[in-house]
Amino acid sequence: MTNTDILAALQWRYGVKTFDTEKKVSEEDLATILESARLAPSSFGIEPWKFIVVNNPELRQKIRAAGYDQTKITDASHLIVIADRTDAEALTGELVDRTAKAQGKAPEDFAMLQNMVSGAIASKPEGMARDAFLTAQTYIPLGMMIETAALLGVDAGPMEGFDPVQVTSILGLEDKHLRAVTMLALGYRGDDAFAALPKTRRAHDEVIEVMN
Amino acid sequence: MTNTDILAALQWRYGVKTFDTEKKVSEEDLATILESARLAPSSFGIEPWKFIVVNNPELRQKIRAAGYDQTKITDASHLIVIADRTDAEALTGELVDRTAKAQGKAPEDFAMLQNMVSGAIASKPEGMARDAFLTAQTYIPLGMMIETAALLGVDAGPMEGFDPVQVTSILGLEDKHLRAVTMLALGYRGDDAFAALPKTRRAHDEVIEVMN
Repeated sequence: MTNTDILAALQWRYGVKTFDTEKKVSEEDLATILESARLAPSSFGIEPWKFIVVNNPELRQKIRAAGYDQTKITDASHLIVIADRTDAEALTGELVDRTAKAQGKAPEDFAMLQNMVSGAIASKPEGMARDAFLTAQTYIPLGMMIETAALLGVDAGPMEGFDPVQVTSILGLEDKHLRAVTMLALGYRGDDAFAALPKTRRAHDEVIEVMN
Repeated sequence: MTNTDILAALQWRYGVKTFDTEKKVSEEDLATILESARLAPSSFGIEPWKFIVVNNPELRQKIRAAGYDQTKITDASHLIVIADRTDAEALTGELVDRTAKAQGKAPEDFAMLQNMVSGAIASKPEGMARDAFLTAQTYIPLGMMIETAALLGVDAGPMEGFDPVQVTSILGLEDKHLRAVTMLALGYRGDDAFAALPKTRRAHDEVIEVMN
């Protein structure tokens, strides 16, 4: 893929509000978009997240009621809820275990990693600051899913405008130490007035500075 | 670009620790990576960020001292500091102005947008919660720069491990209402022991759930 192709895809994409209710994203494209999220990097590799594909129509109706009645929540081909982990204390052990497994070693061989990561997490005071650190990580796979979708010609509607407490409850995420952070509707743009509007972005020099 | 090509690029990438000190990223690739960030979506389109390309060797040396002496900070071809905006109160007016400009209308025509966005920002209590909301947005362009770099065969080393207060000060960002959040080294992998390690990721079923 050339530089021009990548930029054309990112210029083509926008946050779709009204989706075509008939067109479905293929299983192959959905799998590639989800795999982009799974492969996303995170601080120390802790991957403090989960991606929930909500196909159940009743659940989507309930989420829509908790999401300012946005039609894309029920009408898009797919809805992915991006959740972060609320059990920070479990993340380090999990990281050590899977790193050891991937390298065919014993978890005990990763004492330095264990100390570094648990120390880094503990250095962020419990509560708001630690939560924010974990929450922010989930925007990396969100960005990557949006880009992958665009590259595949799949439309996406990212959402923060919903009640995360309600959506967490609707999906029964609390018991799994998860909390809904953002949502991503996937599908194909329908008769959407926003499609015709010019892209609004800050000018290059407003957001990019070079210090030589 | 096919699904297979995208996945191959994302499998190929990893967080590079040791960069080749000789190889430089082309101006075209750098521009495409930065443009991916500029085109990234954000909550309501507020784009609460700035991307600073630090080429100055003395500044990079100082940042390295504030970044656990990580060699990639000075040795990678390019270093981008991703900053968020600390003046939340200015973001709504800026959004209204550029939306009006893009659509050739008067800012007064966007009173509803003005009320919705300023209300949403004000609904997050001043201090930590509002900061976290703006900070998290910057991880979207971070994810997109990482993906675009991978697609172009450019290596990237994302970093959170540095003293953001010091880096903010070194670059003189306070007066511009900016704060360093993350950094991204760009270049080509050098003699890096991490390159040979197997990719460590949670299994598919651990991070992806389908609710039918």
